[in-house]
Amino acid sequence: MLPWSHELAGDLHRHTIDSALLRGNPLGDPHERPLWVYTPPGYDADDTTRYPSIYVIQGYGGHLGMWDNRSPYRQPFTETADAVFAGGEAPGCIVVYVDAWTAYGGSQFVDSPGTGAYHSYLCTEVVPWIDARYRTIAKPASRAISGKSSGGFGAMITPMLRPDLFGALATHAGDALYEYCYLNEFAKAVRALRDYDHDIRKWWADFQGRPSFTKEHDMWLLVILGCAAAFSAAEDGTPELPFDPKTGALIPERWERWLAWDPVRMMDTYADALRTQRAIWIDAGTRDEWFLDLGAEAFRAGLSRIGIPDERIYFELIPAGHGGIDYRYPQAMSWLANRLER
Amino acid sequence: MLPWSHELAGDLHRHTIDSALLRGNPLGDPHERPLWVYTPPGYDADDTTRYPSIYVIQGYGGHLGMWDNRSPYRQPFTETADAVFAGGEAPGCIVVYVDAWTAYGGSQFVDSPGTGAYHSYLCTEVVPWIDARYRTIAKPASRAISGKSSGGFGAMITPMLRPDLFGALATHAGDALYEYCYLNEFAKAVRALRDYDHDIRKWWADFQGRPSFTKEHDMWLLVILGCAAAFSAAEDGTPELPFDPKTGALIPERWERWLAWDPVRMMDTYADALRTQRAIWIDAGTRDEWFLDLGAEAFRAGLSRIGIPDERIYFELIPAGHGGIDYRYPQAMSWLANRLER
Amino acid sequence: MLPWSHELAGDLHRHTIDSALLRGNPLGDPHERPLWVYTPPGYDADDTTRYPSIYVIQGYGGHLGMWDNRSPYRQPFTETADAVFAGGEAPGCIVVYVDAWTAYGGSQFVDSPGTGAYHSYLCTEVVPWIDARYRTIAKPASRAISGKSSGGFGAMITPMLRPDLFGALATHAGDALYEYCYLNEFAKAVRALRDYDHDIRKWWADFQGRPSFTKEHDMWLLVILGCAAAFSAAEDGTPELPFDPKTGALIPERWERWLAWDPVRMMDTYADALRTQRAIWIDAGTRDEWFLDLGAEAFRAGLSRIGIPDERIYFELIPAGHGGIDYRYPQAMSWLANRLER
Amino acid sequence: MLPWSHELAGDLHRHTIDSALLRGNPLGDPHERPLWVYTPPGYDADDTTRYPSIYVIQGYGGHLGMWDNRSPYRQPFTETADAVFAGGEAPGCIVVYVDAWTAYGGSQFVDSPGTGAYHSYLCTEVVPWIDARYRTIAKPASRAISGKSSGGFGAMITPMLRPDLFGALATHAGDALYEYCYLNEFAKAVRALRDYDHDIRKWWADFQGRPSFTKEHDMWLLVILGCAAAFSAAEDGTPELPFDPKTGALIPERWERWLAWDPVRMMDTYADALRTQRAIWIDAGTRDEWFLDLGAEAFRAGLSRIGIPDERIYFELIPAGHGGIDYRYPQAMSWLANRLER
Repeated sequence: MLPWSHELAGDLHRHTIDSALLRGNPLGDPHERPLWVYTPPGYDADDTTRYPSIYVIQGYGGHLGMWDNRSPYRQPFTETADAVFAGGEAPGCIVVYVDAWTAYGGSQFVDSPGTGAYHSYLCTEVVPWIDARYRTIAKPASRAISGKSSGGFGAMITPMLRPDLFGALATHAGDALYEYCYLNEFAKAVRALRDYDHDIRKWWADFQGRPSFTKEHDMWLLVILGCAAAFSAAEDGTPELPFDPKTGALIPERWERWLAWDPVRMMDTYADALRTQRAIWIDAGTRDEWFLDLGAEAFRAGLSRIGIPDERIYFELIPAGHGGIDYRYPQAMSWLANRLER
Repeated sequence: MLPWSHELAGDLHRHTIDSALLRGNPLGDPHERPLWVYTPPGYDADDTTRYPSIYVIQGYGGHLGMWDNRSPYRQPFTETADAVFAGGEAPGCIVVYVDAWTAYGGSQFVDSPGTGAYHSYLCTEVVPWIDARYRTIAKPASRAISGKSSGGFGAMITPMLRPDLFGALATHAGDALYEYCYLNEFAKAVRALRDYDHDIRKWWADFQGRPSFTKEHDMWLLVILGCAAAFSAAEDGTPELPFDPKTGALIPERWERWLAWDPVRMMDTYADALRTQRAIWIDAGTRDEWFLDLGAEAFRAGLSRIGIPDERIYFELIPAGHGGIDYRYPQAMSWLANRLER
Repeated sequence: MLPWSHELAGDLHRHTIDSALLRGNPLGDPHERPLWVYTPPGYDADDTTRYPSIYVIQGYGGHLGMWDNRSPYRQPFTETADAVFAGGEAPGCIVVYVDAWTAYGGSQFVDSPGTGAYHSYLCTEVVPWIDARYRTIAKPASRAISGKSSGGFGAMITPMLRPDLFGALATHAGDALYEYCYLNEFAKAVRALRDYDHDIRKWWADFQGRPSFTKEHDMWLLVILGCAAAFSAAEDGTPELPFDPKTGALIPERWERWLAWDPVRMMDTYADALRTQRAIWIDAGTRDEWFLDLGAEAFRAGLSRIGIPDERIYFELIPAGHGGIDYRYPQAMSWLANRLER
Repeated sequence: MLPWSHELAGDLHRHTIDSALLRGNPLGDPHERPLWVYTPPGYDADDTTRYPSIYVIQGYGGHLGMWDNRSPYRQPFTETADAVFAGGEAPGCIVVYVDAWTAYGGSQFVDSPGTGAYHSYLCTEVVPWIDARYRTIAKPASRAISGKSSGGFGAMITPMLRPDLFGALATHAGDALYEYCYLNEFAKAVRALRDYDHDIRKWWADFQGRPSFTKEHDMWLLVILGCAAAFSAAEDGTPELPFDPKTGALIPERWERWLAWDPVRMMDTYADALRTQRAIWIDAGTRDEWFLDLGAEAFRAGLSRIGIPDERIYFELIPAGHGGIDYRYPQAMSWLANRLER
């Protein structure tokens, strides 16, 4: 296939949804959100068949328009996902692309006074909206969620919180085991903040007033700011860093709020919810820059610890870093599609 | 502006052009090519005004569809280029996006038995096609070419070869001073080829049969193979490496063929052509991974050596690597637009 | 001075000390230890003057013989320390070079069933041995301890534990704020141990049977093994890792044993001891590979928190990594020498 | 063996030699040089046996005193070389440690108006001095030379120039294939010199006035300055860089002078000399930071090209970088000792 061609066997419907929950969100982000829905080949030919649905969420910095991005020698996920169903490799599913962008580059798919009610938006607005308009099988055994990096994190925690909605998941290099994926970033942030009087708000002001990502520290300061907004915001919405910005020393009560959102630490609390999952796909690169391969190992080990049988789990570490693993997404989608109830 | 919005003040026309020159090209690449043409605000309102034209070409691995790619906090060049004209920062120009993709990821915008007649395609097919269909000012003083990396290389050499067509150029981190941008890659390639019996064709076969870029050496082997196809192909089209694949020792007669395409070595031969250029923009990042900041310095110094006055030249080294400098493209476009004859 | 010349103004006495405490140590390391004592110029000329003493300890992997190592353009510390006193920059001191090497490359200067009684060796054997044989001023206000890296750690904790012996200290890039200096190493160790069935003892067996440090992970596995022996050994002396060797998940009760030895966490417990210190030198490189600049900042901030006046403290972050900062040692020695009571 | 113990089975004699050739050298370096001579076990017991000799030279930045340096878990070469003969692994040889340090950190073992007559010093002063005082077998078939990095370079070129003296050699990661080992350094140097008005003399003045190697670029600027002094000095001794310090563009006539000293380019000219060598050891690390594994491959290939039989050659690429390969030195020494005529 030529790099610029793109013919889908199914159909991709590009909607805009008006969210009541996101209206008036603290960052002034739009409450009208793009929402894409893919229907598989044959969906229109027979209007009685109902389909499982797979929700797809993005990594940090991702917004819905990026799913269209093209790159050399690889096709966008919208096309490789279509190919899963077009070629008969897996039975048809409805694929739902949900946007959870914020001014800080992401929401971590949680409800927070620092960013907005993105978890509730997904679960109580998007899911019913889809079920009302598409021929889904509207039960958890037929609904999955999938994502990479922060999206993988979202795919781990959302079924823990809402097993009544989601009964399967796929996490590619999902955020977990926070002592390894975040602390190194905190240390680098402390150094970067030396140029900003140890004040991340000064960096944020600077960042907004110039071309983005022209400084090497931009990406990691952004993630830290956004995660502080998601995990440790004050009641008034101010993101509060979980470390002293001058020395790096952890501030226990704030860091505990982050750890409370660590999937491998949440597993025991939400063990019942996890035990309802019929299919769990986990992968990560062996040289992931944020050590998310360790997070994957720990999440996998935790699943056994709480009694989830091996046959429901797919686990693989692949020779890769954090980037370039999008070719795994359709593999996970196919695996999920074959395990969702229909 | 929201990350997923995109409203152009001008119009982007997406054409397909059927190239006679690319028909039957050695790599079996398509001869029907995407060709995008941007017309500035006001173009349709007044059908008598004619406009300068600026041709835009891509870096290695680039194909036309990638101009639409979105990223966090930045807009695609199609939009930032539009903004240059929408806001009145520069007088209107027609912008032409030309595709020169090949199976190897690029053509270097030259004619070669290894890839095809991409230089001629651009100069003798695309330019007349545009001039026939759009209200351009069809003379070199009103026609510029711009690009980054391999595109910057193309933007340097094309006006040298065809000053009758192009009278201005912009090069962002353009390939130059080949001893610094290529030799390090050769050395790494020799190491990578140890796993392929020192045979780049074996790597190429492997590369084509698996997800691309899952090995760290993929990108640099690809560039070397593609440049060998462009610069040192045998008469039958076989790419011939300019070095011994086991020891790395340069093969002088082939390496000389590469050096004959080094912009800083071509300058004296094509000094007359360069002296016709009315505007030359040069920039690069101070920590460019391929040392293209040195190439930029050397090209700049060469321009003075052959007598081009300073006032026709813009030169800047910016604190950056090779990536993330797309925010410079509209700045160069504005600068060129203000200097093209109209 | 020529790179191979070395004339001391004072005298370096190379002793061997037979330690009762190290006899029968768990790793079978020698109980006869090298012990070097430097006496300053004039020491022999006048046999009534007594001098302050400064104890010098080494970083991880260091053993006493390495103080003689020569490098291009720099002189060994034994010579630069001598120069401090030879040139009159500081009044004379007795400098004591103590060895605490173990089979694992270091002891962290603590007493442990995993390595031996190195803290007690230093405090209850070496100090009296010195005071009995050299004309020291045998009180804490006249006795300092100094070191880099693990040696800096030793220099921080020893006066906390034994303020009756040491009344001043210098720490160059001393280990502190363990969440930043160790956790990244744990993560890398987990990856390295994949080649050893997740068993550090298998690595250790491999390490001992081949040239050392031929694998990139050798150094960090060694440090982790040695610190586990020092900080979290079982009662029978077996080093117990503070993390799951397959997933990296921290094992809280063991990790707490490490944290109990984190200087910045010990400060409040040992605040009274620290408040007796008359001179505290702290430095580190701003790009220290183990983020010990953050540890330095945190230690500095803690000193103020517990009420130590600024005038007793020297603090500086220098533009450097972890290596190559030996030129700072004589600066600290001079500063200490001028503040010890005499 | 304990890290601080060192008992030699043979004897190491530490001489100083007064060189007439180095007297008045252009850098003002000493003409009295350390010269160490090792005699194997049994040398004194029987005063009639004569021995082959192996000359050992150092890498860039090395001076003779550094052979005594100790490191964790490894012994100095003076001890591991002794062990070769002590254990009967190889028949006894006299080992000669020659110093060729200069103010720039090295001489490359050539005669140059920029540094001094170090090649002649070695060949016409040291060799006869040794033969006059020790029971050597004073002919090339019984005399070898060995070194690493710049020392490996010296070990390759010295027998080419003086086959009447040396009949065997060992090169560990010796400098060769200059387009790969030097050009990358030139590019980095150009960048570093931006802070010194593009003038390496300004850097040199700065370097001499502060602690050495506190800037990351110090090492590579030093090597370039020293090699320019060795390879492309003006007649008055001024080092002349082989590249434009602002653009990096090579200055062909000067770069040719460097290339004239590239071992892989010298081989054809000195083929007859090389064909007299009875034993040639070549190794390098597969990830050598200066790509000297490629130089090793090219040197190896060249030996075959000029007709040297395989049985005289040992060749191996080892999994290593440029550092830490000192454990190979005694292996090469043993191999040479078994092949020198006696």
